[in-house]
This record gives sequence, C-alpha cells and structure tokens, in this order.
Amino acid sequence: MNVIKYLLSDEELPAHWYNLAADLPEALPPTLHPGTREPITSEDLAPLFAQALIEQELSTERWIEIPEEVRRVLLQWRCTPLYRARRLEEALDTPAKIYYKWEGVSPSGSHKPNTAVPQAFYNQREGIRRIATETGAGQWGSSLAMACSVFGLECLVYMVKVSFNQKPYRRALMDAYGATCVASPSDTTQSGREILRNDPDCTGSLGIAISEAVEVAASNDDTRYCLGSVLNHVLLHQTVIGLECLKQLEMAGDYPDVIVGCTGGGSNYAGICFPFLGEKLRGGRDVRLLAVEPSACPTLTKGPLAYDYGDTAHLTPLVKMHTLGSGFVPAGFHSGGLRYHGMAPMVSHVINLGLSQALAINQLECFDAGIRFARAEGIIPAPEATHAVAAAIQEAERCKREDRRETILVNLCGHGHFDMQAYIDYQAGKLKDYAYPDEEIALALSGLPSV
Amino acid sequence: MNVIKYLLSDEELPAHWYNLAADLPEALPPTLHPGTREPITSEDLAPLFAQALIEQELSTERWIEIPEEVRRVLLQWRCTPLYRARRLEEALDTPAKIYYKWEGVSPSGSHKPNTAVPQAFYNQREGIRRIATETGAGQWGSSLAMACSVFGLECLVYMVKVSFNQKPYRRALMDAYGATCVASPSDTTQSGREILRNDPDCTGSLGIAISEAVEVAASNDDTRYCLGSVLNHVLLHQTVIGLECLKQLEMAGDYPDVIVGCTGGGSNYAGICFPFLGEKLRGGRDVRLLAVEPSACPTLTKGPLAYDYGDTAHLTPLVKMHTLGSGFVPAGFHSGGLRYHGMAPMVSHVINLGLSQALAINQLECFDAGIRFARAEGIIPAPEATHAVAAAIQEAERCKREDRRETILVNLCGHGHFDMQAYIDYQAGKLKDYAYPDEEIALALSGLPSV
Repeated sequence: MNVIKYLLSDEELPAHWYNLAADLPEALPPTLHPGTREPITSEDLAPLFAQALIEQELSTERWIEIPEEVRRVLLQWRCTPLYRARRLEEALDTPAKIYYKWEGVSPSGSHKPNTAVPQAFYNQREGIRRIATETGAGQWGSSLAMACSVFGLECLVYMVKVSFNQKPYRRALMDAYGATCVASPSDTTQSGREILRNDPDCTGSLGIAISEAVEVAASNDDTRYCLGSVLNHVLLHQTVIGLECLKQLEMAGDYPDVIVGCTGGGSNYAGICFPFLGEKLRGGRDVRLLAVEPSACPTLTKGPLAYDYGDTAHLTPLVKMHTLGSGFVPAGFHSGGLRYHGMAPMVSHVINLGLSQALAINQLECFDAGIRFARAEGIIPAPEATHAVAAAIQEAERCKREDRRETILVNLCGHGHFDMQAYIDYQAGKLKDYAYPDEEIALALSGLPSV
Repeated sequence: MNVIKYLLSDEELPAHWYNLAADLPEALPPTLHPGTREPITSEDLAPLFAQALIEQELSTERWIEIPEEVRRVLLQWRCTPLYRARRLEEALDTPAKIYYKWEGVSPSGSHKPNTAVPQAFYNQREGIRRIATETGAGQWGSSLAMACSVFGLECLVYMVKVSFNQKPYRRALMDAYGATCVASPSDTTQSGREILRNDPDCTGSLGIAISEAVEVAASNDDTRYCLGSVLNHVLLHQTVIGLECLKQLEMAGDYPDVIVGCTGGGSNYAGICFPFLGEKLRGGRDVRLLAVEPSACPTLTKGPLAYDYGDTAHLTPLVKMHTLGSGFVPAGFHSGGLRYHGMAPMVSHVINLGLSQALAINQLECFDAGIRFARAEGIIPAPEATHAVAAAIQEAERCKREDRRETILVNLCGHGHFDMQAYIDYQAGKLKDYAYPDEEIALALSGLPSV
C-alpha cells in the first residue's frame, strides 16, 4: 500500500525552536526606535512585550528551548500530520510528488496557536494579567483567546470593524473562550477616537487595530501586547512546522525541491521554510522557497524594501520590510489573513538576499485551486491556504510540462470551515480578481518615513 | 509529565468492524417489509442499497473485515486521538478521570465520514453511478459528498429546507465537493410534490427528506440510497471509534466505568459503546453506557419501543425502535443532528435489554457545558457533542459528591466551527429550553402502524 501519511510520536515534537538569525549570511537590519531612529533595545520594548519574548526577538542563538509547559499544550494537536497528496497528484496527472503539512487540526483550525500558546505562557509566567492584540478575520484572535483561556489570562482583541460586522463566527469563538472583542476603530483608545473623529464610518484595518492594542498595552502596567505574525519571535515559534516536516520527509525518504507557503505577515511561510533554509545555509541541500501572496495585497512583489511602521498611528518601532505603506488599505478580497500592508522583516530579508522567490496570485485561481484540492484530498482549505495550493498546482503543472519528478512541499495552514461564505460567493460567480494599480501603490508608498 | 494524549499507529487502525449482533443475549427483532409485514430479505433491500451493505445489515458475524481501499481513506485522519481532559478535570475539581475521543479531526469535522467512506466504496465497487441521501444540518451530507468525491460517484442530497435556507455553510461544503444539494420537500419527487401540494410552505423534516432520497433510489437503476445513522451497517462502521478507544485506554492503563455518547440516530453512541459492550457480553468488565438526547427530541426517554417507519411517506421498511412517531416534528433547537423521530433499532434494543441507560438534557445546560469544555480544553464542540459533554460533567460532579475516582469516556463527535451561530444565540440569551409536552408526544404516537 502506498503511504499517504507521516506521523511523529510525542517525543519527536521539537524540543527547540529554530532561529534563522543564527545562520543568515548577512544580519537582519536592526529595528529602529520610532523617536530616536536608533536600534531598538530590550528596554524600549519592555512596556509592550514579555521579557522572554523580547529576548527571543533579539536573539541570534540558533536553537531556543521550548518550555515544557508550552510543549504540553502544543502536544494536544502536535505533531501535525504530513500527507502525500496522492489523489491530487493523480487528478493533476503530474509526475511531481506533492506533500502537504496539515495545520488545520489545531483547536482553532489554523497554525496560529503554535505561537499563541508560548506567547500566553511567557506573559503568564511573568505575572501579566491581560493581553491586548488585534485580529483581522479572527484566526489570530481566536487562537490567542484559546491560549489565554488555557493559561488564565484576560484577552482583549481589537478586531477590524468590517470583519467584526461581517464575520461573526470567529468572533463568537473568541467570546466562547472568554475573550473581549472590540470593533476597531473604537472609542476605547486615543488612536481609535482620533480616527473616528476624522472618519466616523471608518471600517478599520489591521494597522489601525494594531495601534489600538499597542496603545492599551503601553498605557497599562498589567497588560502586554501580542502579535500573531511579522515579528521574529512569532516566526521562531512557527518553526515547529518545518522542523517536523524535516523528520517526516526523512521518514518518507524524500526532500523538497520546492516549498510553498502563503504570506500575510509571513509566519506560516517562515514556519515551514526556515528550518529547510537553515539546513541549506549550513551546507545542506538546496531548496527553492516560494512565498505566495494575493494579487490584491502584493507586498512582496510590488512593495519596496524600506523602513516602515507596523501600524497606522505610528506607535510601533520602525522595521525594514517589504511594505505597501502603513496607510495602505487593501481592496475587498477574501483572505482576511493576507491583508497586511507589511511583511515580516526576516521574510523580507530572505527575499532580498535572493534566498526565496515571491509570487502573487489572483483570488479566482486560488479558490479554483481550493475546490480542486477539496475534491481530491477531502480537505477544504482556508482562503489564505488556497494561495499555497494554487502555487503548488502551478508547480505540479510545470513539472508535467517539463517531465520532472520534483518534490513539492505545501503548508496547508488552516481549514476553511469558518470561510464558507467566501466559497459561496466564489461558486456564485460574485468574486472578482483585483490587481492593485501601480499608481495607487505609489501613492500609498509616498508616505513612507525617511530613515 | 502527565500524559494527555493517546495515539495509535496506522497499523493499529482496526482491521475489522465489530458487529454487536454476534453477542446480543437476545436477537434484534427483525425489520419488516412495509407491504407484507414479513421479515425483510436481502432481495427486498436490493433496489435501495449496495449488496455488500445489505449483507452487513443482516449479518450476525462478529468481525467484518474493513476493505483495504476503505482503510486507506480512513487513515487520512484515523486513528483519531484519545485525550485525557486534565484541564477540565481540574476546572471541575473532580476526582473522576475524563477521557474524550476526538472525532473532529476528519475532513468534514465529525465522525460521519467513518461510514460515508465505506458506503461510497461499496457502491462504487458494485458499479453504482449515483448516491441519493438526506441530511439535516449537513454533517452527514457533507461527509457523504466528500466520500463520493473521493470515489468518483455523483451525490444527490435532499437537505431539510429550513436548514438549507438557514445554514448555508455545510451546504456550501457539499457544493465544493461537487454534490447536488436540493431543498426538501422538493418538486423532484412524488413524495415531495405531495407534501408541497398539502403544505406549500412546509419547511421539511428528516423523515420527509428520507422519503425523497429513498424514492429516487428506488426508481433509478443507477442510483442507491445511503443513510448516515440508524441502520445496523452504519453503526457497524462507527465501531472503529470504540475499537480504537479500547487500545488507547489500554495504553493509559485504564478502563471506563461509564461511556457517554449523544444520540440522534445513534451511530456515534453505538460506535464508541458497542465494542465495550461486546467485551462485557463476552465476559469482560462491566461498563455503564449512557445515551444522551435533547429534551426537545426525547426519543429514548419518552418514545415507546414500537415498529415504525423511518420516513414520513412510509416508503421505508418497518423497524422496531424507540420512536416519537414518523410524523413527529421537533421544536426548534440547535442540534440539527439530534432531531430524528426514531432511533437505531440496535440502540433501542440495547436500551430495552437494560444494557444501557438513556438521559435527556436541555439545550441551555448543553451549551453551558460546551463553553466550559472550550475554555478548559480549547476545543469547541458541535452542539450535538455538547450533550455528551454535559452528561460527562454531570457524572464528574456526581463523582465529586460521592468522592469516587471513576473513569468517564466521552465521544466528542465533532467540532462546532460550523455551528457558531448557535453559540452566538446562546451567549445572547436567545435560546430557550424546550421539553416536549407529553400530550403532543401522545398525539404524534397515535399514528404508529399496527404490527
């Protein structure tokens, strides 16, 4: 019988996270203090983050131990399965081998708990009472709410207003976990009130929601801020995905020629890719990395690499990243997790060093890929994950044209059970492709800070 | 470290289903032909079901081999994890040990694919082109649609109209898998047209949807009918759940004092309980079985054991079961999977023989249990599954009062990600308890056929 699944035992859950900073041929450009424009220090970040997370953010240690308390919670659903997509291969009639890592088995249905759990743990260990965060469609907010519930922390989530109103289900999940969910912009913060004064009907953005959550953390001693992507320590926590894949592909006697991940802030892509990239940088096998983003939010493919703020109100430090400008508001499309104006500095750096490629795909092709995947493999991917699937199908079709038996590894970062309205709209022909016009991007970029 | 999870390897996926009929102290009363009222034969059932499934339906063999092609698909998500609910135990401050079997990791998020896959397989192997079925909230329909997609069969689903209109998400999942979903009652069948003629605004019931699907199968040579619960072969296919639990609890060095499952048609309850009951009947350890149903559809606790039809139009054979009458329409409550008027004959028989207890719980207590479970264990249960959780909490609280360290095993048959509207309504205080009045039950029962 042809094997379709590769499982690891609990003992094989990685004991350490992998930190790519240890192996980079060129150091990551420093994060800058928004006032002084000097490299940020641990003290500067102390009002916002738990100390252990700040240390991880700035660390260049290659391996960072995963605390037993964190492993214990992660083990509820990890190690996650790696699948060989044999039925999809057959449907595509491709000589390529397609593997997918399935992160949808977590309690909230995505990869987000991989970092929510350690973030909640460290904050609790340091005596923090409450965590403030932002969320777009709610994958991150619901995952953090779950982790806070496990560790007995209060959780305050600023949810982008348009999603708060249109997507009540992940919000309901946050409620169920006992979190407080506030539509952003709100009148609970100075930055929120300022935006509402100028535009009472503002439907919000991730940048605005970040401003509100950061403000609450900065102005309350018992509260810290958590972010679900972008930052080094978040990417670090996601490396359990790729570390598991390394072991699982060894079981399969295989190694990827190409690894595909979708990119919003960059964490699931980094989580699967960085451990393989580390192997390569330490003299191991070459591998092609492919970061896939929506054409409607083309951060990597159309945004320059520049210092920019992570939020709209410019409360965050300045990070060097691919960005569409902190004022960028993406057009309506259905991958709530891929709408951020910026990109993880570490992912941006890797692309800049030529260690990864990036690709933008339109949403109609992505939803079509999601349907094809569902019919072959039985799993309906989250709209975000369909971007990775669409790129994998492109690669498999290229392999067919070129008659190459390459190995493709895809990060299937979440299930689509919360996102069926998007599939309904797609199947009803209501969705359109939207490529952001270059002149609008230029306008959005005109406000970049001069550093 | 205290273990929280018990996993099995692929090799430990049961090679055979367990058939309780082999060990019953008293044979199951026969199913009767609706015309002759004589025990039904294999030939009578041939227009409706694949031959292999008819053989299983009538079999008294103890172990029935699971075909390799079926095991191969099941292995995508099986064996499913067994968890020790340590955080819930702590929250309840109970001396009891609570284990839960987690069936929500399947592609459609519930236990239903355990039988959808073999049913699709056998039909495909026998050259059937199309399968007709019914679904309430859509757990079964989406699972069968998934299985049909895997085996290349057409799938026609009659979905209860009120759910078709109010719950578009599982319908969208069926669409994604390529199934055809029709609101029932419909004008595509004689039984549907007849009902619509008498009541054009009829919002449907499972009994009506069954009539439509059965009619289509009976009148088309290339089409067979599939049912997602109630029948012997369906319960048989679900025994993989309990068979896995037996091995997993052996790993844990434990054995259940009580096993809890929710009952709509009875298949997930039977799936977890029957293998343990078989052990007991063959001289093994005693175990208390607890079937939990909604107070708003009290089939086991208020319905008599009687011969009745499985559908509204009286096209199905007559089965001896606990029933509220085939004309019974349950009040509005939020567990779409638990709204059937009848109960699996095998489950009814087991209750009648005193081998299991039954319990009805109101939905407010169930949703409260669901929230408590989510906050402790991170997983939000489907409304159906909250009935089992609520009963487990009752048992754990009894253990606390009596200071007994009993072992409780719960079947957590599905996740609630498709059912967040129900949680929204619950948290907003919009749900009410509804105990069916005895006089209305008496009225519904007055139409029972005389056998």
